[in-house]
Amino acid sequence: MRTVLVTIPVNDRHKEYLESIGKDCEFHYVPAARVTEADVRQAQIIIGNVPPKMIQESPDLQWIQLNSAGSDAYCKPGVLKPGTILTNATGAYGLAISEYMLGVSIMLQNKLYTYHKNQLQHVWRDEGDVTSIYGSTALIIGLGDIGGEYAKRMKALGGYTIGVRRTQSEKPDYLDEIYTVDRLDELLPRADFVSLSLPNSPATRHIMNEERMKKMKPTAFLINVGRGEAIDTDALCRVLKSGHLGGCALDVTDPEPLPEDHPLWDAPRTIITPHIAGKFHLQETFERIVRIAGGNLENFLAGKTGEMRNLVDFATGYRKR
Amino acid sequence: MRTVLVTIPVNDRHKEYLESIGKDCEFHYVPAARVTEADVRQAQIIIGNVPPKMIQESPDLQWIQLNSAGSDAYCKPGVLKPGTILTNATGAYGLAISEYMLGVSIMLQNKLYTYHKNQLQHVWRDEGDVTSIYGSTALIIGLGDIGGEYAKRMKALGGYTIGVRRTQSEKPDYLDEIYTVDRLDELLPRADFVSLSLPNSPATRHIMNEERMKKMKPTAFLINVGRGEAIDTDALCRVLKSGHLGGCALDVTDPEPLPEDHPLWDAPRTIITPHIAGKFHLQETFERIVRIAGGNLENFLAGKTGEMRNLVDFATGYRKR
Repeated sequence: MRTVLVTIPVNDRHKEYLESIGKDCEFHYVPAARVTEADVRQAQIIIGNVPPKMIQESPDLQWIQLNSAGSDAYCKPGVLKPGTILTNATGAYGLAISEYMLGVSIMLQNKLYTYHKNQLQHVWRDEGDVTSIYGSTALIIGLGDIGGEYAKRMKALGGYTIGVRRTQSEKPDYLDEIYTVDRLDELLPRADFVSLSLPNSPATRHIMNEERMKKMKPTAFLINVGRGEAIDTDALCRVLKSGHLGGCALDVTDPEPLPEDHPLWDAPRTIITPHIAGKFHLQETFERIVRIAGGNLENFLAGKTGEMRNLVDFATGYRKR
Repeated sequence: MRTVLVTIPVNDRHKEYLESIGKDCEFHYVPAARVTEADVRQAQIIIGNVPPKMIQESPDLQWIQLNSAGSDAYCKPGVLKPGTILTNATGAYGLAISEYMLGVSIMLQNKLYTYHKNQLQHVWRDEGDVTSIYGSTALIIGLGDIGGEYAKRMKALGGYTIGVRRTQSEKPDYLDEIYTVDRLDELLPRADFVSLSLPNSPATRHIMNEERMKKMKPTAFLINVGRGEAIDTDALCRVLKSGHLGGCALDVTDPEPLPEDHPLWDAPRTIITPHIAGKFHLQETFERIVRIAGGNLENFLAGKTGEMRNLVDFATGYRKR
């Protein structure tokens, strides 16, 4: 009999669903904040992001299903013993995060953050010209579920979409053009919106450095929802202060949380949110995570581990396919 | 030879376009802020919203093309002499205003206005649950160009769209259901988003009164981009303070501009912008106005006044068709 540790906040309906799949399993439901090393040690299966430190190559653990799309912390040596299966929750967050991205795209182009600041001071003042998504060009860097869903929305609204990804692949209908990341420098000057939805890895760290930000149009907008480290934060502050870029929206920052006295808080034309675009804030996100976990549980128990969804490649931190 | 007074801020390319149509006309270009009664008196054709007071049934005026979608101020007795043709700029503003509406829809559902207030105070704080346009129900009151374009966008993002209009008409593809306005009371409880894009008229004044706001879901969002008078402002303040409604976004207010000490500025869960969603802030809006004016000029000069676009019915203040 396998023991399944579930640390995500499931309700009775979710429990019934998971238990109907894992009929011969023993389920332990422990909220993430209260999980102990003993809970982790006795589990063959874990559903939820338990602290990597608690795992320490736990000998009985056969599979861990993360509730996050990012998985870099679990790929590091010393966390999972070799052979442990790691799956993430890619596919659960695209809806919530792409609607957030669309919202901040319009906030930036329509200066709605400035209007809100004016409102707080009871100021009725016209802030002038705006642009539109319709007719704009969006450069979407990172074409996982999140980048793909954002591209679909920008395309549906009349934007021209250019996708950039790590590896070559076929062009989906919602992209007008697709390239690998080595072409980034020549693509940046074409975009009105540049979005980053990248996992954390040595290859993505500071992918937006000062030189690249300067290659963007002076009026272009930069949006980051992946990992804060994808942007050189000091350079971004300098670039914005110099008047370059139409603005930026950051749901992730480096460092995180952003210290109270960090200059980024007051950088001009900047929208900062505290890593809230994803999480379980949208009910549908959580439902999707439970469905991914349930589907994977079914395949795992049937011995069809090759058919599990979102298998993570430890070497790259990306999904295997 | 006809004299055409143009008060909208045309550039050389626009002038060339209009003059190529009105070959036998004399064009007077006077910026709206500097226009005089003498300019108005000598014009047979006016392109632009000259102050209604200046017109005073100007005897030579044959046609006025407004640069606004609203035309109520020109329908009042004593402004245009009987027989004068009035056309408005419906169709020019749908793009700009519907993107604005989409932006504030997401700002409301994702609490992005609260996050921006937190940012101004350097506060990194999670504000909890959100909802999505995907799977939501939008009740769109007023199905002109603006309401229609918003409906298309909500539908494209996975929303369920219910349209309400004054007169019966066929259901377009981007609406899931369509009704006349007498059904409003039974529709309000179904909606997650209620949008108002209505012209000013006795029939639309306070169409959203306290009773109707209370019929909305406690979590629903109210958006107004038409005329401020469509909402009973005092009632809205009371309703929001009572905790009812998820929030509201107002690009138009009553009164307007909103006085510095008006309680609406500080109403909870409220986004206020100073009537900026339209105007000429988006270049494409202005291009569309010029194209409407040019097309109408061609038909007017050819004597095909029945084929002119956006002919206004003085009795209702709406387009004739």
